[in-house]
Amino acid sequence: MTKLFNDPARFTEDMLVGFLDANAAYVAGVPGGVVRAHDTRPGKVAVVIGGGSGHYPAFCGTVGTGFADGAVVGNIFTSPSAEEAASVARAAHGDAGVLLTTGNYAGDVMNFGLAVTQLRSEGIDAHYFAVTDDIASAPTGEEAKRRGIAGDFTVFKCASAAAEDGLDMAGVLRVAAASNAATRTLGVAFDGCTLPGAETPLFTVPDKQMGVGLGIHGEPGVRDEPMPSAADLAVTLVDGVLADEPAGGSQRIAVILNGLGRTKYEELFVVWGTASRLLRERGFEIVEPEVGELVTSLDMAGCSLTVMWLDDELEKYWTAPADTPAYRKGAAAQSDSGERRADAATDAAAPARNLAVLADDDGRSGGRFVVKALDAIAGMLIDAEDELGRIDAVAGDGDHGRGMVKGSAAAKAAGTKAAEEGAGQGSVLAAAGKEWAAKAGGTSGVLWGALLAAVGSRLGDTGRPDSSTVAAGMRDGYDALIQLGGASPGDKTMLDAMLPFVDELQRRVADGEAWQDGWRAAADVATQSARDTAEMRPKVGRARPLAERSVGTPDAGATSLAMIAHTVADCFALTGKGDA
Amino acid sequence: MTKLFNDPARFTEDMLVGFLDANAAYVAGVPGGVVRAHDTRPGKVAVVIGGGSGHYPAFCGTVGTGFADGAVVGNIFTSPSAEEAASVARAAHGDAGVLLTTGNYAGDVMNFGLAVTQLRSEGIDAHYFAVTDDIASAPTGEEAKRRGIAGDFTVFKCASAAAEDGLDMAGVLRVAAASNAATRTLGVAFDGCTLPGAETPLFTVPDKQMGVGLGIHGEPGVRDEPMPSAADLAVTLVDGVLADEPAGGSQRIAVILNGLGRTKYEELFVVWGTASRLLRERGFEIVEPEVGELVTSLDMAGCSLTVMWLDDELEKYWTAPADTPAYRKGAAAQSDSGERRADAATDAAAPARNLAVLADDDGRSGGRFVVKALDAIAGMLIDAEDELGRIDAVAGDGDHGRGMVKGSAAAKAAGTKAAEEGAGQGSVLAAAGKEWAAKAGGTSGVLWGALLAAVGSRLGDTGRPDSSTVAAGMRDGYDALIQLGGASPGDKTMLDAMLPFVDELQRRVADGEAWQDGWRAAADVATQSARDTAEMRPKVGRARPLAERSVGTPDAGATSLAMIAHTVADCFALTGKGDA
Repeated sequence: MTKLFNDPARFTEDMLVGFLDANAAYVAGVPGGVVRAHDTRPGKVAVVIGGGSGHYPAFCGTVGTGFADGAVVGNIFTSPSAEEAASVARAAHGDAGVLLTTGNYAGDVMNFGLAVTQLRSEGIDAHYFAVTDDIASAPTGEEAKRRGIAGDFTVFKCASAAAEDGLDMAGVLRVAAASNAATRTLGVAFDGCTLPGAETPLFTVPDKQMGVGLGIHGEPGVRDEPMPSAADLAVTLVDGVLADEPAGGSQRIAVILNGLGRTKYEELFVVWGTASRLLRERGFEIVEPEVGELVTSLDMAGCSLTVMWLDDELEKYWTAPADTPAYRKGAAAQSDSGERRADAATDAAAPARNLAVLADDDGRSGGRFVVKALDAIAGMLIDAEDELGRIDAVAGDGDHGRGMVKGSAAAKAAGTKAAEEGAGQGSVLAAAGKEWAAKAGGTSGVLWGALLAAVGSRLGDTGRPDSSTVAAGMRDGYDALIQLGGASPGDKTMLDAMLPFVDELQRRVADGEAWQDGWRAAADVATQSARDTAEMRPKVGRARPLAERSVGTPDAGATSLAMIAHTVADCFALTGKGDA
Repeated sequence: MTKLFNDPARFTEDMLVGFLDANAAYVAGVPGGVVRAHDTRPGKVAVVIGGGSGHYPAFCGTVGTGFADGAVVGNIFTSPSAEEAASVARAAHGDAGVLLTTGNYAGDVMNFGLAVTQLRSEGIDAHYFAVTDDIASAPTGEEAKRRGIAGDFTVFKCASAAAEDGLDMAGVLRVAAASNAATRTLGVAFDGCTLPGAETPLFTVPDKQMGVGLGIHGEPGVRDEPMPSAADLAVTLVDGVLADEPAGGSQRIAVILNGLGRTKYEELFVVWGTASRLLRERGFEIVEPEVGELVTSLDMAGCSLTVMWLDDELEKYWTAPADTPAYRKGAAAQSDSGERRADAATDAAAPARNLAVLADDDGRSGGRFVVKALDAIAGMLIDAEDELGRIDAVAGDGDHGRGMVKGSAAAKAAGTKAAEEGAGQGSVLAAAGKEWAAKAGGTSGVLWGALLAAVGSRLGDTGRPDSSTVAAGMRDGYDALIQLGGASPGDKTMLDAMLPFVDELQRRVADGEAWQDGWRAAADVATQSARDTAEMRPKVGRARPLAERSVGTPDAGATSLAMIAHTVADCFALTGKGDA
């Protein structure tokens, strides 16, 4: 388990302080992550990698010459926010565009996608690419749904080397796509890891069993098997990866045998002794293999085998030199870098926000009520954090409670500040939503940010919204979730509480009830609907066979939404039906 | 725990196959370990490091340009044999001598010391140096008794860089001594590791406790403390190391924050954030720190802080480039190396052994009896392996059972071959002893090898030895242990069973008993004496305060000696008092 920490809530920040200190020759800190210590040279595409932390040396450990220009550093196993991704990309950007690339996880795809939109609006030629190497996470024919695991390393390496080599954005994107199309990984796990401050593991593997295809955040795999010998494991991994060989794959391959943290070097070498022999017996030539820890999961026990089928271009970039904090090979040309950054942190400061305040007295009163609700929500979520984390850990990565706490705290602070400056309900909600999305990270942060913004946009800053406006605002929020999240009702997500809530609220308001009365009844419906999600199977981004594991446990996002709906209802009771 | 292995008894051999395959560009295998893939260039002192395995990247992971020329690879946590050390040194040697260097452990000191003697007899200018950085293992003033832990890395690095820089043997030895004198380490442990194939950990740390000063094989530390925060741990480590600052230490320091295997990179960076600040507040300038896994202990949880106080020469060698499988820095000059080795394994083949056979019929009969006894001993030790390992794990590293099994099996094979070739009892014992020492590794292997050789030398190859000769032979064996091991009766070692055994045997033989009768009575005395060691405290190479931990458990070496004495007595019963 993770034993060393100070405040678990500040683990990633504390980690970054030490990482930056120990590697000051290579990297500089910027809001949201790290960039190389030297400016990106003119004409070079910047490559920014990232995702949740807990995977060192992925991702910040590979920022340096020949590899990434920057890394966005989220909380443990949690996507960074869109604002953080944009901040690092701005700092890393030279003058030739920036490629943002992560493993294929819903939170990363949303947040980095939003960052690309933001960066383009600022005139930066930004693009996003998601790595999909995990063959256990979706079948052949549905490669685009696969998660990114240790194959992140081959794709990030090749795309970064292509950028270092001077390719333009189209070329770098082509190499990223080619390396991803040529890369396959199969992973196994023997034991789970424990988040900083947690008393119990995020997940476990039954004693003397091996989870085949288990994800690096404990996402369900394809099957459990009795613990094999090292030689038999090598057969499982080699046969599994080769069975998914891409069409037209060559006989020259780059290979990674990656340890997840607790499966140590000596064990990996024992497995490699058999795996390398098997690969050669199948006629493959192995080019500069890596056996070690490249994409870890805290102290998770397990390993994975990655094969990238090489063509001349990919082999050139796979074998190219690199000089980074945790990965060095060959003689990397430091002279390719620009000037040492004078003060990287200030270079990358996010643009200042100006909140337009055009509210009337009713609107300001509404703004103050929103602040009370945000305060109650933030307090409730602190109490609920552990429970939400436990629920989420059954089928997800256990980060839901943490993300909701961080997001709601940030939303409360931003909403309070806006209200103190005289903002109405609409602007308070907009400010709160923006900060929730910016600070929470993860999937839920983006979605809650969009939900609050959509509601705020409908309510506006003047007057006291009538019941049908409030109900319509909640419908707008639901629509924003649908548009952004790509999920549907029945997929075991927060939508499965939100849709019944909105339906019930709108029906009651249409029947003439005041929205405050209808809200409490709708919150009851949301609670029951959240409970009912226990019988559903998740459909988005989960390996199907073991998604069974989550049956019997409700969805964490639906549960927290219902909790929040009740908390808001309690605020009416305390404050007199929405009058602040 | 260690989960991946095939035959646990062949773990190290299997590991080496994979390691050599993955790193063929850097290293080649030779009997006993690995050497650089390229010949040592003329005029360069060769540096050969080593010790037991289970500490990757120490030791074989740092063989390459700018670092070691070779590494001797023992079994997990077990000293390589003298023959293995000599073999690797022969292969690594160019024409300017070879420095063999290890951490300061009794088994390594003995085996590498014997290798130096052997190499010098072959005309190679060989020297040995033991690293003593662990401040928890002996107090100030007794620095020479300290164990070597992560400070192995700073000393091996500087000595190797000095050799790469062209210094002669005197210069390399001077740098090794200077870097060792300037290096201090304090380690802590949170949880033990599990040897391949074992069901239970080699040792444990009480839940929510931290063992301060616990050795990298679980050797007792100085105290247990409640598990601290990362920041408080940084204070403990920094204060502890600085309190032992060597006289005349400068303000420029090299620093390693080393993880033992399960304490992961993110945690280390959190600790480093505080440790680096504390060191700077004390006025130190930190030169190219290393935060990561450099000297591990399988999947042990814990970490250590190493400080090397720099002068200009040490700073030059600490910051010098290196290019090895697991440690790369700067632009290492590959061109400094010689030709790629054509076939390193055959270059280093050990000299063939010729067994002189000058026995008569009685001597050959005695030789066959010795083989029967060796066969019984080897069989008995296979059954006793787990029990001996458990006993040894209380105060030692748990390798005693494994080493005794390997040594006795090798002794049986060599003795059998010698007897089949017609050797008498003396040559059979000599052959068996040589192979026991060569193949067992560890401290006990050297000692049992010397014991058998001494007995054989007294018995000779002709005639049937009389009882006083047998008893005198056992006394010779005891004297050999005293001379080689540096321990005294009362230090809780095998001597505490051997001395009462020899005393009893000689007394009874002097009283006119046949040695076979006296032997069984002496074996009973040895068994009781071995049990009595439970009340002793070890005195050699153990930190005193927690040597208390071993009180209540008998010494493993004394226990196995008594078991062997009884097994030999049983052979008399089966074969008719020593007639083969």
